[in-house]
Amino acid sequence: MSLPISFLSDFGHEDEFVGVVHGVLATIAPESRVIDVSHSVRRGDIRAGALMLTRAIQYLPRGVLLAVVDPGVGTDRRAIAAETEWGFFVGPDNGLLSPAVAMIGGATKIVSIENEEARIPSSGQTFHGRDVFAPAAALLAAGEATLDDLGPEVDPDGVVPLLLPLPEADNGVVSGEAWWIDHYGNVQTNISPEDLQAIGLRPGSVVTLRAGARLHQVRWVAAYGDVDDREPLLHVDSSGLMALAVRSGRADEELGLSLGMSVSIAGVRDD
Amino acid sequence: MSLPISFLSDFGHEDEFVGVVHGVLATIAPESRVIDVSHSVRRGDIRAGALMLTRAIQYLPRGVLLAVVDPGVGTDRRAIAAETEWGFFVGPDNGLLSPAVAMIGGATKIVSIENEEARIPSSGQTFHGRDVFAPAAALLAAGEATLDDLGPEVDPDGVVPLLLPLPEADNGVVSGEAWWIDHYGNVQTNISPEDLQAIGLRPGSVVTLRAGARLHQVRWVAAYGDVDDREPLLHVDSSGLMALAVRSGRADEELGLSLGMSVSIAGVRDD
Amino acid sequence: MSLPISFLSDFGHEDEFVGVVHGVLATIAPESRVIDVSHSVRRGDIRAGALMLTRAIQYLPRGVLLAVVDPGVGTDRRAIAAETEWGFFVGPDNGLLSPAVAMIGGATKIVSIENEEARIPSSGQTFHGRDVFAPAAALLAAGEATLDDLGPEVDPDGVVPLLLPLPEADNGVVSGEAWWIDHYGNVQTNISPEDLQAIGLRPGSVVTLRAGARLHQVRWVAAYGDVDDREPLLHVDSSGLMALAVRSGRADEELGLSLGMSVSIAGVRDD
Repeated sequence: MSLPISFLSDFGHEDEFVGVVHGVLATIAPESRVIDVSHSVRRGDIRAGALMLTRAIQYLPRGVLLAVVDPGVGTDRRAIAAETEWGFFVGPDNGLLSPAVAMIGGATKIVSIENEEARIPSSGQTFHGRDVFAPAAALLAAGEATLDDLGPEVDPDGVVPLLLPLPEADNGVVSGEAWWIDHYGNVQTNISPEDLQAIGLRPGSVVTLRAGARLHQVRWVAAYGDVDDREPLLHVDSSGLMALAVRSGRADEELGLSLGMSVSIAGVRDD
Repeated sequence: MSLPISFLSDFGHEDEFVGVVHGVLATIAPESRVIDVSHSVRRGDIRAGALMLTRAIQYLPRGVLLAVVDPGVGTDRRAIAAETEWGFFVGPDNGLLSPAVAMIGGATKIVSIENEEARIPSSGQTFHGRDVFAPAAALLAAGEATLDDLGPEVDPDGVVPLLLPLPEADNGVVSGEAWWIDHYGNVQTNISPEDLQAIGLRPGSVVTLRAGARLHQVRWVAAYGDVDDREPLLHVDSSGLMALAVRSGRADEELGLSLGMSVSIAGVRDD
Repeated sequence: MSLPISFLSDFGHEDEFVGVVHGVLATIAPESRVIDVSHSVRRGDIRAGALMLTRAIQYLPRGVLLAVVDPGVGTDRRAIAAETEWGFFVGPDNGLLSPAVAMIGGATKIVSIENEEARIPSSGQTFHGRDVFAPAAALLAAGEATLDDLGPEVDPDGVVPLLLPLPEADNGVVSGEAWWIDHYGNVQTNISPEDLQAIGLRPGSVVTLRAGARLHQVRWVAAYGDVDDREPLLHVDSSGLMALAVRSGRADEELGLSLGMSVSIAGVRDD
């Protein structure tokens, strides 16, 4: 039985990179279904790719996760494959896989992909997605290799972690950041509903939002339908985090928010 | 036997939305092939999505059509599933599905997707593509649910229609609009060849085209090869509607046409 | 046994063209896997599509290659299908397929797709990807047609070739051009490592690079890790050709290179 392969990268769709990796996967694992998670991670943005994986992983069919956001290709960064309860993870050892692997319960075993027999020989050293990661993912998916066939086991403590910023609460204010802005202009923060509840806020509360240098008052609601058209709102989004949206509008533009900008939330004080 | 699923949305490709929906489909209906019709419908543009479905539906393999252009997510708009001769349609009750369902001969039964067991529980109410529509489509495709398992039957007369503008003929002039401009700059109108024949025009005729405020003379030809390079033409396009094109050029730019602009066509008068 | 189909076009992702072709393929060849090589070839750019195919073909699973970059649709250019050692090639007779077919060892037989039974009847003559090429590719993939069922055999010498520019060596200088710039800003030239070795250059050499009117000195290295961050480099890329890159940067911007620009490489002279 071939396992499905879910594939994420920063390859974009202008070139044939995604197609060539699909070609390698289909050649080695002809029975494996391949799911494109996204190939629009911003070039080399490991954190954006890692966050995308944490949002997606629980909805992907168990099998193999192949992820390539790899600004260090051609340096001595390792290529790794990890075994988890969910299945296998294959990608560069640069932090990209770490948050999703942690979310899934951690890895039971990690190897460094080094065996030449598991690679496609190539003149260049720039396309490890095609030459190193895709063959490893496909061999695992097709059941034609075990982790041990790919290379030596490595110490999990030596794997590159990814430190994600945590929100901070101080004096009734929770401070975090805008860490994902989607295609619709919705702004996800790294603040959870529990963080807000800890400072006494509840669904239904009107809050003071500081977005960079600007102040807004918005209401924490359950759904878009709870506010009027063009009105901003604060809600728990589909990933379970606090997010800003504007009904029938773009929150990034209307609230003046961009990626990475500081966001703080507090109750409205009666003066 | 699992049915194929054709999937259209306005999710774009920047985020992981399309990939996550594929993950849900693959998890529930692992044997179903999934065809991406397009995910580039302009954000929330129900009419553009509906027109795309009418152009595509006859070429898609019979099975399940999953369509999500859903500006009303999080309001009280219904989620529906319809049975037709072609197969099942799943999407929001906002008019998106209506023209394609009508084209296929109408629905024999429509239900409102309300049963909690057919949904994926979620903290937020923004991603019904993932939590409501994809599970329903996949359950139908895999034969693991019937329409009745999804929710109560609804009155077809209560389903939101989509009114598409019809061209008008008056005094030898047919007036319509530019309702699709494709990637190549070709401009499809809502005018049919029969509309032009009714005012005495025929293939081979030179016509007077009013595009917004500008006037052009173009010839109604059968194919690009019937005009010179860079020359504009009027022809019956691959959907059977009158369209404007420029051989080796962009008709939108060269004729000054944009989406929704009025277009009228008349014979050339001898003065 | 159904063959896999690899599909390349300039259809882009804004419209439903790619999805509709997938629909036709899935209807005629429901068991064939379809791999999207890329659909982002620049509109009508036959050479860019042909180069993409030459880079991709050896990584695609043997089966059917369907390629549509077809500025001559609606003229009398032929639609062809070719048999090779690799499998079948289907596309317009405009040079698009020629370099990849040559790379694979040439065609053993070529036919002109003319039989009406192998086409989908259509009102228009603009979407041969859907009406002519996809049915032919799917029939071949499903084993439901042979080349002879598609149309009459044609003389291979009458098939449109594609002349690709060769680099020239003169007086210790190799002159070529920038013929592909990828999503990361890497610039592939048409110069091979053998071309440089013939003028006495070796990996490790520092070379004089003329990019259009600008001069740079860069080192020929094996991998990005051999230079410092933000430093330009010359290397053999994943297709086996000399390419310019900047570690953690965009070579096109930092070296002032654009598509088609002349590039010449020489040793550094001691004055």
